[in-house]
Amino acid sequence: MEKLKVEVCYSPALFPYYENRDAVVVVTDVLRASSAIVTAFMNGVERIIPVGTLEEAKAYKDRGYMVAAERDGIVRDFADFGNSPYNFTPERVQGKQIVYSTTNGTNAIKLASSGSQVLIGAYLNISALATHIIKSGRDLLILCAGWKNKFNLEDTLFAGALSEMLLEDDRYNTICDATLGAIDLHNVARGNMMAYVEKVAQKGRLRVNNLDDVIPYCFESDLTELIPVLMDDQLVRL
Amino acid sequence: MEKLKVEVCYSPALFPYYENRDAVVVVTDVLRASSAIVTAFMNGVERIIPVGTLEEAKAYKDRGYMVAAERDGIVRDFADFGNSPYNFTPERVQGKQIVYSTTNGTNAIKLASSGSQVLIGAYLNISALATHIIKSGRDLLILCAGWKNKFNLEDTLFAGALSEMLLEDDRYNTICDATLGAIDLHNVARGNMMAYVEKVAQKGRLRVNNLDDVIPYCFESDLTELIPVLMDDQLVRL
Repeated sequence: MEKLKVEVCYSPALFPYYENRDAVVVVTDVLRASSAIVTAFMNGVERIIPVGTLEEAKAYKDRGYMVAAERDGIVRDFADFGNSPYNFTPERVQGKQIVYSTTNGTNAIKLASSGSQVLIGAYLNISALATHIIKSGRDLLILCAGWKNKFNLEDTLFAGALSEMLLEDDRYNTICDATLGAIDLHNVARGNMMAYVEKVAQKGRLRVNNLDDVIPYCFESDLTELIPVLMDDQLVRL
Repeated sequence: MEKLKVEVCYSPALFPYYENRDAVVVVTDVLRASSAIVTAFMNGVERIIPVGTLEEAKAYKDRGYMVAAERDGIVRDFADFGNSPYNFTPERVQGKQIVYSTTNGTNAIKLASSGSQVLIGAYLNISALATHIIKSGRDLLILCAGWKNKFNLEDTLFAGALSEMLLEDDRYNTICDATLGAIDLHNVARGNMMAYVEKVAQKGRLRVNNLDDVIPYCFESDLTELIPVLMDDQLVRL
């Protein structure tokens, strides 16, 4: 019997070469969009509407929606708040609908919508994801949001960790070099993740704007079993 | 003083996001185009004309040129030979002009031509490359040919090895995650390269066609100081 496939795509710009309509697509943007989205569901948000452009986000704001929007880590002035997971507090988000637009993450989510199911992945819900995908009996394709279509390390480390969990199940296999590379990098980093992340370019970008306080939180595993899923272009609880 | 940059681009499809007109661009396709090109110069070829499409290659053949052309590791029937480095013997290539078209490598070379200088890199000439680039005092951008626009490990290992050589020089620096990842993978693999390469997807592809005999050769370092350089769309000795 042919095995189920695990593949990793390092950039939204490479997604056309990896597209697989039979796969569950996990979109990740560890620093910080996917960590923030998972946190919002942990804190009771009802749905999140990911939008690609700031114009769309502003149009929703003008219609009375609560909007989280940033570019390059900076909150936009029309927005209610930016994309730090710490912004998505229960007081703000419980029972609410939130429109969300970020530099990399939300575009990746919209791009992924051709998959059979699109899930949002972060360290915060990694084991729940692995369990769900294995139960689904489908291929896995991990789409890393990257940084402006460039490869980034933090999403790759997450992809390696999740791939390794799937491949521990005999029904899964990979011949994807990007998956093998991600697993090796995960194993280089796992012993001392915070030291490894020190060298990550995104950390430099976040530090410039004093936004690096959330990094240890974004690398915490299994704080929740909640999995955000894309339904009709909106994110809801699976 | 601002340091010179080292960057690695994992796929021709990502090249627009890394493009740097001040950089020396090193194009690599370890298995097998760039290793074959370096070998051809070791064996006395006068020039190599890289062409993107099989139609162009065939048109050159019809005009009397010697043509090396393959797709997916299979020699095309109109061609004189395929792209194994072992095909580029002194008897065949010395003093000759050869037209060359491959699945990934030749398109990457043509794409890279916006750089200030385009060099062909392989393990076979890696130290000579490092020495030349450091002397040039320019940024380095390594373009991995990949496999049909997907990430591949063998080109990444080479990119990591070459990047590490540059970064030993104080004038060079990197904030490129792809470079940091490539260096880490190089350090995972370097202790036992052949065992590591066993798991590389390209090796599986080559083995299917009994073309894997060249792999140990393609990972041999510093067999030559020759560096092929692109001049007016043709490769000549630097």
